[in-house]
Amino acid sequence: MPFKRTFRVHWVDTDVAGVMHFSNYLRYFEACEEEFYRSLPLPSHDFRVKYGITLPRVEAHCQYKAPCRFGDFFDVIMRVREMGEKTITLEFQAIRQQDGKLAAEGYIKCIAVNSEWKAVQLPADLAKTIRENGA
Amino acid sequence: MPFKRTFRVHWVDTDVAGVMHFSNYLRYFEACEEEFYRSLPLPSHDFRVKYGITLPRVEAHCQYKAPCRFGDFFDVIMRVREMGEKTITLEFQAIRQQDGKLAAEGYIKCIAVNSEWKAVQLPADLAKTIRENGA
Amino acid sequence: MPFKRTFRVHWVDTDVAGVMHFSNYLRYFEACEEEFYRSLPLPSHDFRVKYGITLPRVEAHCQYKAPCRFGDFFDVIMRVREMGEKTITLEFQAIRQQDGKLAAEGYIKCIAVNSEWKAVQLPADLAKTIRENGA
Amino acid sequence: MPFKRTFRVHWVDTDVAGVMHFSNYLRYFEACEEEFYRSLPLPSHDFRVKYGITLPRVEAHCQYKAPCRFGDFFDVIMRVREMGEKTITLEFQAIRQQDGKLAAEGYIKCIAVNSEWKAVQLPADLAKTIRENGA
Repeated sequence: MPFKRTFRVHWVDTDVAGVMHFSNYLRYFEACEEEFYRSLPLPSHDFRVKYGITLPRVEAHCQYKAPCRFGDFFDVIMRVREMGEKTITLEFQAIRQQDGKLAAEGYIKCIAVNSEWKAVQLPADLAKTIRENGA
Repeated sequence: MPFKRTFRVHWVDTDVAGVMHFSNYLRYFEACEEEFYRSLPLPSHDFRVKYGITLPRVEAHCQYKAPCRFGDFFDVIMRVREMGEKTITLEFQAIRQQDGKLAAEGYIKCIAVNSEWKAVQLPADLAKTIRENGA
Repeated sequence: MPFKRTFRVHWVDTDVAGVMHFSNYLRYFEACEEEFYRSLPLPSHDFRVKYGITLPRVEAHCQYKAPCRFGDFFDVIMRVREMGEKTITLEFQAIRQQDGKLAAEGYIKCIAVNSEWKAVQLPADLAKTIRENGA
Repeated sequence: MPFKRTFRVHWVDTDVAGVMHFSNYLRYFEACEEEFYRSLPLPSHDFRVKYGITLPRVEAHCQYKAPCRFGDFFDVIMRVREMGEKTITLEFQAIRQQDGKLAAEGYIKCIAVNSEWKAVQLPADLAKTIRENGA
């Protein structure tokens, strides 16, 4: 089952064209990703403390299909697309609630790095838990 | 000759990992794009007033290669990759000044729409000027 | 009864010092204000369409007492402090959920303007409804 | 002599009202502050490494007088208003270049803290240099 979180377009998210700025979809995708990690059945969700890793992004992609405007509710639906030894690729859809239209869709690929910003293997239990819960 | 603008990572651009947040590269790419349009030899650069169009994004992509940190200077180098009847695809590189390393690269594709948010042809003189100045 | 909304510090809200950037409190205060207006028993909440007004800010103030960090929940508590003929002053507190500490408090004063950006009187029913529901 | 930096309103800075979002003035004020510190005749400008301090904000205030719109140039003019044992209060004005009008003015007060986020005295040479160069 995909993971879902609902957001609403704030005034500050909009631009002079009257729509949500395109960069904000990636911010909301990431906000959904944060909640996904916190939803995992793990003893701790602070990956920096627990595993000594952070997950910087190596790639982001988004296609914009229909604008969201001030006050619009939209659902962000997330699935794990692919897991590598060191990487996680998550795919996202933003669906406008008022008409069910796809507003945007894309993916974010991140990589596990240690505190020296060196790529490292994903901890086994983390990788397993993401795999089991991410579709 | 590609178009270039230099930026500096502000405190607000960073995140708790100590690096510029990934979404901000797209914001700086767009800031460079804005300056590119203003650099064009056109009688007016207000496309909304002059042509009745805006240029919402239909696609954005970015690969992240090396982090930029607080205070880092980086050059954004922009080229026109492709022009369609209604679309413009711009490609960008962000280069860290301190070591010349590629920090990020990607593209943004936008489409001309009228005030009803309907796709329209790019005005001929605008398209011509972008083509002549965008590489 | 004060109006309350709960938010969570997103990764993008943080800065290299590991805390939520100070400007983001004002953004969350405004997000709470947006929800307050929407909670009012009015036939329409689109003030631009219904009344022909927007509410630009004329003043903002915030004192920062204790940092919020990535993932922290905080409550924004809002009260109407003062209503003028044309202005609304709202006061806000941000309370960290984990320890009940005051993270930040401040106020935002806004003014009703018409589409020409000229100050106008607050519509009577809007002013009345805000007064009745804002404390 | 006050310290000055010029900025331009980017598309992403605007909101659906067609003007720069009020929170962004504080971000540009801070951007000016960053450049001020870097302009000081000090052997290093990395206060975290050199002095073990950061300068979180304890207060921010801004009055908004006239809107800035997409593409507008504005000057941020900064002066040191007051120096305490542990605090620095900086005042700012944002002036629209096209007509010399005051767009916004305010102040930011910050406090020196060590890595445990405990308030500490400003290093003597830093305080002296700010005092000598900040008006």
